Amino acid sequence: MRILITGGAGFIGRKLTERLLAAGAVTLDGDRREPIEQITLLDPYADETAAHDPRVRILRGSLSDPGTISKAVQGVDLVWHLAAIVSSEAEADFDLGMNVNLHGLLTLLEALRREPGRPRLVYTSGFAVFGRPMPDIITDHVIPTPQSSYGMQKAVGELLVSDYSRRGFIDGRAVRLPTISVRPGKPNKAASTFVSSIIREPLAGQEAVCPVKPETLVYILSPRRALDALERAMTLSDASIGPIRIIPLPGITLSVGDMVSALEKRAGDRIAARIRWEFDPEIQRIVESWPSTVKAERALELGFAGDRDFASIIDAHIEDELNGVLPPL
Amino acid sequence: MRILITGGAGFIGRKLTERLLAAGAVTLDGDRREPIEQITLLDPYADETAAHDPRVRILRGSLSDPGTISKAVQGVDLVWHLAAIVSSEAEADFDLGMNVNLHGLLTLLEALRREPGRPRLVYTSGFAVFGRPMPDIITDHVIPTPQSSYGMQKAVGELLVSDYSRRGFIDGRAVRLPTISVRPGKPNKAASTFVSSIIREPLAGQEAVCPVKPETLVYILSPRRALDALERAMTLSDASIGPIRIIPLPGITLSVGDMVSALEKRAGDRIAARIRWEFDPEIQRIVESWPSTVKAERALELGFAGDRDFASIIDAHIEDELNGVLPPL
Repeated sequence: MRILITGGAGFIGRKLTERLLAAGAVTLDGDRREPIEQITLLDPYADETAAHDPRVRILRGSLSDPGTISKAVQGVDLVWHLAAIVSSEAEADFDLGMNVNLHGLLTLLEALRREPGRPRLVYTSGFAVFGRPMPDIITDHVIPTPQSSYGMQKAVGELLVSDYSRRGFIDGRAVRLPTISVRPGKPNKAASTFVSSIIREPLAGQEAVCPVKPETLVYILSPRRALDALERAMTLSDASIGPIRIIPLPGITLSVGDMVSALEKRAGDRIAARIRWEFDPEIQRIVESWPSTVKAERALELGFAGDRDFASIIDAHIEDELNGVLPPL
Repeated sequence: MRILITGGAGFIGRKLTERLLAAGAVTLDGDRREPIEQITLLDPYADETAAHDPRVRILRGSLSDPGTISKAVQGVDLVWHLAAIVSSEAEADFDLGMNVNLHGLLTLLEALRREPGRPRLVYTSGFAVFGRPMPDIITDHVIPTPQSSYGMQKAVGELLVSDYSRRGFIDGRAVRLPTISVRPGKPNKAASTFVSSIIREPLAGQEAVCPVKPETLVYILSPRRALDALERAMTLSDASIGPIRIIPLPGITLSVGDMVSALEKRAGDRIAARIRWEFDPEIQRIVESWPSTVKAERALELGFAGDRDFASIIDAHIEDELNGVLPPL
């Protein structure tokens, strides 16, 4: 199998690459084990350190460059399309968001259409496709009414991936990811970046800013379960997915206050005290415009799973990112 | 007011132009009457006969040509975007459908964004945004699951028009039109073209082919009510529409068999006998993939109206297209 990961230098892309290299193969359609020949990481921020394994190829470039894309897809079998301009940035710079999130996707889809063998594509969407007005509980059948350009671009992407799949140009699967928490690394330009930093920074001995009210509800998924979901979306057979290519994923719903309480319980109140509450009405508005309560029935039937609770998410973060040790106070 | 009608040489475009010229003005936001300075008809098939009035400007060109579009939108206040590659053609020629229905719309939206004064746009979508699986009754809140490329392109268009409006680039309104019947003129490449020809051709002394089973349900709107709806969509104030820019329109639901019975009752069985039933499984599949039963609550609240019954639609067709006279048998 020849694999392409767009946005391959991001944290999900790097973790996915490590998992794939360690496994040495992917399992498709339930039982077909296919060895991995090559993993191409397409990312403007990719550096050569990622190419520590001979199976990894680095392509430094952007989705807005058709030449790079056509080079990236040559002979490809499986694509995880993770690259995106995130929510706040796509709102601040409309043209940039359109270029990468819409036109970049269109170029990628057209390039894949020209490849033989109907390449399989996992497209990452999110619950930002929803916006107010919307029902209190988001089922698989609620109409997307995006109130951000990022959400609009993701909703459009879902429709494009679905039709390119229906026509047999690709075999696409669009997963709607909850907000990932606890995301390792640095804050990014997503309005949701605080959902990770209020846990990550205090545990690393740093201050974090929480720009929303404690009662604000979020819908989240841990990095471990997000990686499981991305692998599962690729594994499933074409037939088990059927005509509807969009799969909203299960997560857990909790308040920001509950997240902080869980941190306090696990790491102590001196660590939780590193959170400064600095209200930002614009972030509050964007985060509140996203759904918090979701019934992801179809994904559960297809074998996708969310996390047990937030305590286990914190434990996994300490294990994966801090070698299991809390830093000294 | 300077007006642009894309697809202005089509039958809806021509009838809308005549209505506007006769009225001499448009009423906006409930009571603001604005005189019409110019109506630009953008259409690859426009001919000079349409320019019988000094207020009409003809622009022969396609939506796939950015130069033509930028010429068309200069100084424009109101746009009715009617141009499209219709369902069967967009399915047969994917690239053509994408070029006009998606890239053409994107070019138009970008051109309007650069115009001052936030031009008002009425975008024509349709119920082809739905496809199986779907619920038996389509409310305003059912998720579009297109199973045709035309339906996908229209659903994407609705999302684009909504976000360009939310950002204040334009003041857009996307109306989902039922199948128009009885459409005057010639059959076109829409899978639904028979919904008009089985009435129009027999009344004009010609044979018509019905490619679907008599029990097939259709959801229709007359040309008169469609024009009313297009005018109403332009008239409504920005505030009365609010954040959701998509307005599914009311129509009537009936079977193809009931349509033929109504024709028989109005014009006699010798006229209805001009219909040949020649089953086409592909047309049956496409038409069956569209919804037939719709609850258009929001549109009714906003003052849009469907037809009373199919008998009145036949009467209106005879009045408008046959000068009120049935041709001799």
